[in-house]
Amino acid sequence: MYKRIPAHIGIIPDGNRRWAEENGLHKKDGYAYGVPPGFLLYEMMVEYGVKEATFYGFTKDNNKRAVEQRDAFTKACIDAVETLANRDAELLVIGNIDSVAFPKELLPYANRRVRFGRNLIKLNFLVNYDWAWDLKKGMEQGDIASADISRIDLIIRWGGRRRLSGFLPVQSVYSDLYVIDTYWPDFKKEHFHEALAWYQDCDVTLGG
Amino acid sequence: MYKRIPAHIGIIPDGNRRWAEENGLHKKDGYAYGVPPGFLLYEMMVEYGVKEATFYGFTKDNNKRAVEQRDAFTKACIDAVETLANRDAELLVIGNIDSVAFPKELLPYANRRVRFGRNLIKLNFLVNYDWAWDLKKGMEQGDIASADISRIDLIIRWGGRRRLSGFLPVQSVYSDLYVIDTYWPDFKKEHFHEALAWYQDCDVTLGG
Repeated sequence: MYKRIPAHIGIIPDGNRRWAEENGLHKKDGYAYGVPPGFLLYEMMVEYGVKEATFYGFTKDNNKRAVEQRDAFTKACIDAVETLANRDAELLVIGNIDSVAFPKELLPYANRRVRFGRNLIKLNFLVNYDWAWDLKKGMEQGDIASADISRIDLIIRWGGRRRLSGFLPVQSVYSDLYVIDTYWPDFKKEHFHEALAWYQDCDVTLGG
Repeated sequence: MYKRIPAHIGIIPDGNRRWAEENGLHKKDGYAYGVPPGFLLYEMMVEYGVKEATFYGFTKDNNKRAVEQRDAFTKACIDAVETLANRDAELLVIGNIDSVAFPKELLPYANRRVRFGRNLIKLNFLVNYDWAWDLKKGMEQGDIASADISRIDLIIRWGGRRRLSGFLPVQSVYSDLYVIDTYWPDFKKEHFHEALAWYQDCDVTLGG
């Protein structure tokens, strides 16, 4: 169906709070609605032969938000990772575990790849991630903290913002960015097809 | 006229070769047509009170192109910097000067800020820039090579591609990216207004 499938897709599932407000809920309540779309997207990526995917969970900067929002997005991340841990995937959680904001439930998956079932896809989650921390590890230890995550071909962002928001600066240097205006909890399968269709015509030259 | 003016704008002037082909010229001939629009844009940025601007000249990866193209984009960069050296600006050229691809004509402006006339704007040019080299300096010397360039608020890219192509990964982590489909040599003043108008509604939260 598609001539070119990106080997590695980055997912920025933004707009959970705006979605909640539009639907008469508290901001914090949006995050839980962001978990089920992640599984749908996981299944589509496996079906279409994507080899690696990275989900933007939450960042150090997100921790500046109200405490009930922090609790809610942390829980959503735990739920997402724990459910995917029962699927076929090689799971890797990257984030600063030396901070209290890192959920202890995810320590078993932190900074090392854990295989579940058949190795259908590499799945990475950024949890309490911080781009400056990622690069600083490189300065201190010779390799960035996210060194096990490969270069990203296509980034799909929901919620309309046209920016990376600190998402893996090294792996994103040549990524094509496709932005969907719909808020993430309203994810539709068509969004993935839209992004893939757009990607067919991206002229990937890597500067050459 | 505008409520918010980005303090620092990044400029990715892409599409010179595609423009040349569409106009019956050789690919290499497009670059020279990319110099005059830079001055128009410089003048508009000064007029609207932009404090700092960074132009993407060429990168290490661009050096993979045909030699006549390399010669042409190198000459365009020299012309652009030397002409702006006679305007009111603090000029800074960032790039790897330890490579033969770095034009010796620009050594006087390399890796140190040089002031001309009145200090109306900080103008940065990336010349023989390489994102990996930039970060590697940080690993070796504690600070990235482009440390004198500040965080970028708005990046405007001409030529339709929706990606950063290795443009200052650290300074671009939270930048809003506005893409104009027109090729750079066909720059119009309206493009700058379009980008500023769009930027008015960007909700800058820096993750909070």
